[in-house]
Amino acid sequence: MRIDVSQAARRLAAHDNILILAHAHPDGDTLGSAFALCRMLRALGKKANAACGDTIPPAYNFMLQGLEEEHFEAEYVVAVDTADIKLLGHDMRETYAGKVDLCIDHHGSNTLFAAETLLMEKSASTAEIIALLFVETGVAIDSAAADCLYTGLSTDTGCFRYANTTAASHRLAADLIEAGARTEQLNKVFFETKTKTYAALEKLAIEGMKLFFDGRFAAITITREMMRKSGSNEGEYDRISTLPLQIEGVVIGATLREMSDGSFKVSVRTAPSIDAAKFCSRMGGGGHPGAAGCRLEGPADRALDELKGYVAAELA
Amino acid sequence: MRIDVSQAARRLAAHDNILILAHAHPDGDTLGSAFALCRMLRALGKKANAACGDTIPPAYNFMLQGLEEEHFEAEYVVAVDTADIKLLGHDMRETYAGKVDLCIDHHGSNTLFAAETLLMEKSASTAEIIALLFVETGVAIDSAAADCLYTGLSTDTGCFRYANTTAASHRLAADLIEAGARTEQLNKVFFETKTKTYAALEKLAIEGMKLFFDGRFAAITITREMMRKSGSNEGEYDRISTLPLQIEGVVIGATLREMSDGSFKVSVRTAPSIDAAKFCSRMGGGGHPGAAGCRLEGPADRALDELKGYVAAELA
Repeated sequence: MRIDVSQAARRLAAHDNILILAHAHPDGDTLGSAFALCRMLRALGKKANAACGDTIPPAYNFMLQGLEEEHFEAEYVVAVDTADIKLLGHDMRETYAGKVDLCIDHHGSNTLFAAETLLMEKSASTAEIIALLFVETGVAIDSAAADCLYTGLSTDTGCFRYANTTAASHRLAADLIEAGARTEQLNKVFFETKTKTYAALEKLAIEGMKLFFDGRFAAITITREMMRKSGSNEGEYDRISTLPLQIEGVVIGATLREMSDGSFKVSVRTAPSIDAAKFCSRMGGGGHPGAAGCRLEGPADRALDELKGYVAAELA
Repeated sequence: MRIDVSQAARRLAAHDNILILAHAHPDGDTLGSAFALCRMLRALGKKANAACGDTIPPAYNFMLQGLEEEHFEAEYVVAVDTADIKLLGHDMRETYAGKVDLCIDHHGSNTLFAAETLLMEKSASTAEIIALLFVETGVAIDSAAADCLYTGLSTDTGCFRYANTTAASHRLAADLIEAGARTEQLNKVFFETKTKTYAALEKLAIEGMKLFFDGRFAAITITREMMRKSGSNEGEYDRISTLPLQIEGVVIGATLREMSDGSFKVSVRTAPSIDAAKFCSRMGGGGHPGAAGCRLEGPADRALDELKGYVAAELA
């Protein structure tokens, strides 16, 4: 059942020993939301922990500072930024299936798997919903919580660049700055730093980028050899897929990544004039209007040639 | 003489036939401020034009839409985002020396060259000051003015990434979104597009990037041959200088650019632990704590070796 902010605040106020779950492959929004909520609940005098089925990437370690794990048996379980029970990851999903009391989320695709769900699809980040809970419960956002919420807000909006950014996103950022969020430091970590392995992969990717059809189509091929050589990983690969469409004049940008079975996972990004989901559906894939994907058979040359055939038809 | 927002609003209200000057090598803030102010003054029933001594780059052409030039003899001259009369550029500086009635600016380095100056050093952008003038004069910010102001605000804050971003910057962004600013489109143009010539230069730069001292120092050398080969220009070069320090672990990033006389202009960016201005002063240069510069003699190898000597001493 869907509930609103004040009902969610009342549920939290009515319980103690609260366990908060972040989704697997954790990002800034799920972690920022989980740790800010944990801080809010402790400020309300409750026992609370935040947990994640996967290891927390080092860039987010600051969120754990001064937040030692408490020992209790969970009486109330809250999932944050989690659209589906599956997204909690293998172990968590088995442990908590049917046992999540409240889910706080902003994904339109939320399956309402929890007993109650606070779902606000128009929020750019779950952090924005957690901030409303601070207001509702009367807990002041301290600088540590402000850092968590700013991380969630800024990473999910691409530092206020993406179309999901609203007036409310900016107003929350203003409040968080006044609450002491270390925005300069956080922006540096999340938006101005390339890991050595990412930088190495990006270098190989840019070296191999090819343009076709008068520069309207740009493609990058990432082989397993390139991943090995750069030492890069799955998590860093997403950022590579944004590169082809960044070139002026490109309307279809594609990144073809070699999988262990020799096939290629294709990420397609398009300018507003082209529907990426529709385009990819012709190749058996799907996605969103601006970003979609599909699978093509290898080897690399064959996959690219096949893709170029579809692009030619699209641009004709 | 320095005046405040309400005094500046009164001066503008008291005059007609107002000419607004943007600085040479125009950026988003000077143009956004000039064209938004021009729209505000026309909404107040005044004759007003905005002018710039240099050609306006195509990315800003949207600001001119529906704003035909009016014919009048300037009775009151306002410079925006201009810290020094010299920055108006060669022709403008001679024409308007001693004739600028009001300067609206946020640069702490403003020389107070105008008869009166509305200077707000804590504003991240001049656009934020122009927005205050809209409030003061009671003119509603329409969508066209919102686009201009958002461009100034977002370009001067690196889309809210830089340390100069304040709570007021974010609150203005929220207001501009509600006033109809096309933030998604503008962000795409200003923060997610690489011109073909920039992309070509970046590719050459990244290919040639070298790391030294256990990856703590990264350097890029841009030769005149690389500028020629990529077709890139002076304006695009600034963005290249941010690349070396983006690599994780790098504390000094340098970009050495070959000048027409064979010497090298060195741009240095540093992590907070190192004072770039102090570091560059040892090589006869100067600048800010995080970004500074100097000149070194060529050829390229010699310049880099000399720089490495200074870096070795700094990191010792």
